[in-house]
Amino acid sequence: MSAAARLASRGRPLSRPNPAVGCIIVKDGVVVGRGWTDKGGRPHAEAIALEEAGDKAQGATAYVTLEPCAHASKRGPACSDLLAEARPARVVIGVTDPDPRTAGDGAERLRNAGITVDLIDSAEAEASLEGYLSRALRGRPHVTLKLAMSLDGCIAMEDGTSQWITGEEARAHVHSRRAMSDAILVGGATWRLDKPRLDVRLEGLEDRSPQRVLLSRGVPPDGVKVINDPAQIAQLGDVQYLYVEGGASAAASFLAADLVDRLEIYCAPILIGNGRPALGDIGLGSLAEAHGRWAFEETRQLGSDTFTAYRRIQQEDQA
Amino acid sequence: MSAAARLASRGRPLSRPNPAVGCIIVKDGVVVGRGWTDKGGRPHAEAIALEEAGDKAQGATAYVTLEPCAHASKRGPACSDLLAEARPARVVIGVTDPDPRTAGDGAERLRNAGITVDLIDSAEAEASLEGYLSRALRGRPHVTLKLAMSLDGCIAMEDGTSQWITGEEARAHVHSRRAMSDAILVGGATWRLDKPRLDVRLEGLEDRSPQRVLLSRGVPPDGVKVINDPAQIAQLGDVQYLYVEGGASAAASFLAADLVDRLEIYCAPILIGNGRPALGDIGLGSLAEAHGRWAFEETRQLGSDTFTAYRRIQQEDQA
Ligand SMILES: NC(=O)c1ccc[n+]([C@@H]2O[C@H](COP(=O)([O-])OP(=O)(O)OC[C@H]3O[C@@H](n4cnc5c(N)ncnc54)[C@H](OP(=O)(O)O)[C@@H]3O)[C@@H](O)[C@H]2O)c1
Ligand SMILES: NC(=O)c1ccc[n+]([C@@H]2O[C@H](COP(=O)([O-])OP(=O)(O)OC[C@H]3O[C@@H](n4cnc5c(N)ncnc54)[C@H](OP(=O)(O)O)[C@@H]3O)[C@@H](O)[C@H]2O)c1
Repeated sequence: MSAAARLASRGRPLSRPNPAVGCIIVKDGVVVGRGWTDKGGRPHAEAIALEEAGDKAQGATAYVTLEPCAHASKRGPACSDLLAEARPARVVIGVTDPDPRTAGDGAERLRNAGITVDLIDSAEAEASLEGYLSRALRGRPHVTLKLAMSLDGCIAMEDGTSQWITGEEARAHVHSRRAMSDAILVGGATWRLDKPRLDVRLEGLEDRSPQRVLLSRGVPPDGVKVINDPAQIAQLGDVQYLYVEGGASAAASFLAADLVDRLEIYCAPILIGNGRPALGDIGLGSLAEAHGRWAFEETRQLGSDTFTAYRRIQQEDQA
Repeated sequence: MSAAARLASRGRPLSRPNPAVGCIIVKDGVVVGRGWTDKGGRPHAEAIALEEAGDKAQGATAYVTLEPCAHASKRGPACSDLLAEARPARVVIGVTDPDPRTAGDGAERLRNAGITVDLIDSAEAEASLEGYLSRALRGRPHVTLKLAMSLDGCIAMEDGTSQWITGEEARAHVHSRRAMSDAILVGGATWRLDKPRLDVRLEGLEDRSPQRVLLSRGVPPDGVKVINDPAQIAQLGDVQYLYVEGGASAAASFLAADLVDRLEIYCAPILIGNGRPALGDIGLGSLAEAHGRWAFEETRQLGSDTFTAYRRIQQEDQA
């Protein structure tokens, strides 16, 4: 399932509006088919993997990150029907599809066709689908907040200069994260001050440049979507993954509204002192309240900068 | 030499006013004697190691982090004479002693006694002696600046509350760092606000509580030494290792005066937003100037907090 989840990430974000799903078919310990959701959402991962596997799918085990769909569309048949026809012995499913057109029906169809179905509630599959699941279950995109700062937590000099705090490797990493997002958001002041292009400048990935969104109470500039409240991210149609790039006030607005799922911090080995702090007011009542909200997820060295990611601890986890 | 340097650190800081030296005597691949500078600076490491080795010192190799002293004192003979008598075949020296009473004379005496002397300029030996070397060569203690902060670089809430940002393990680590210091310094505001005890509250190490120093233009409280300018650390008599614990303005004063040799940052996985920034004005002219000053040295997880240390890059290193 880990391998299928990794495969799924290749489909992100171009699979939108569909979830980026991964599928691996294994026969006698050998991978005979692999697939991930194609651009625009079709073909589905299962269709591609089954096509590659051909007759070998019969009696095999299929691993699929998300429950195979139960609804046919003009653009292709239902994956649960495709799988039923191909007759694998077993289908292992990472996560149930919350889409009401499938929600359990996909698994049901497979079982009715005499196939063993294992629903394993895989954390890796869930993580690979968090944008899709967030839209389906919470009605809003998954939100990553990026902060690039000095050791003392400044995102710019006192006069607003912020080019450059981090080095080339960190900046390239930011572009790779942009490429995995459906939309990028900045605050009005950053838009006016830094005039950021907010595109992906990595060879071969230029076509991935995501939709640009501004958090502002002002007049929308050409070609840029504007929202005037963080809660309006719910209305960002196809957006599964939103990448918030600052500045301090926009970032604080998202945090105050408890709308950040993942923090990605790039920290440069420099001290600024008396610069612009990373965050504005996030509405904290006491120091105790600040604790238990963020769980360490990963860290990595990027040149002389350090990248560290934290995951929001859900209310359920805190109980 | 690494082992001798590690041994030396056991002498720190109680060896003051003498350097904390380590000595290991090896005969036929077996350690026959070990020593480190005792409380109050005597006996010296070499004397202790030679005592343990006895006759076995003859023909052995002695590793010593600092050049053996050439000056006898009321409290004991010169170590170079002691070594000459014990007749090891070879003495390996980590660092030359800048003390004018020794400065090369120690090595010379050994050579005159027919002993092979290797001066290896060991980085580890140098690091273990940096407080002593700083006093001898720069006329001031080695300075460590500690900062305990949130992910967004705050050392307190807006109202000054700073208890607690970091967890128990990080705080115990701070106490172990205090125990390795000759003096601890805080700024006047931290003294008045937090009323810190600035002692070592670790079992068995209570006697190590270092001298307390205040950076303040005000009247000295009882039992506390006051300096009114960071440069006055030069006048802190026996102090080889100074540990600066903040706050933001005191820390900034030391940084602006380029008097910080090591940064030790404890970072808690919390966001404060709109809190008190870690540093006041450090006199930075441009963002470019901030780069190339700090080299990563070590990082370690302390409970859910992250400890990271950086070493000041010396002008020589930058060339
Ligand atoms: N190092 C980094 O990672 C990084 C990233 C980005 C920016 N920066 C730096 O950050 C600085 C700018 O930060 P900033 O805090 O001044 O500004 P900002 O967050 O970029 O923008 C503030 C603006 O965002 C809008 N806004 C914020 N909260 C809102 C809310 N709840 N509802 C509606 N609109 C809202 C308003 O826009 P309108 O005024 O348009 O109404 C507000 O004036 C710059 O110096 C920039 O270089 C650094
Ligand atoms: N998280 C942490 O690691 C940590 C550590 C320590 C403190 N804190 C927090 O930091 C806050 C206090 O920080 P702060 O920046 O307000 O104050 P501070 O740095 O503790 O003290 C400022 C005072 O230090 C003296 N001072 C500073 N620079 C000087 C200079 N160049 N020459 C002479 N005297 C100088 C002055 O003392 P006089 O006014 O006496 O003349 C000045 O008012 C508190 O909220 C405290 O809880 C946090």
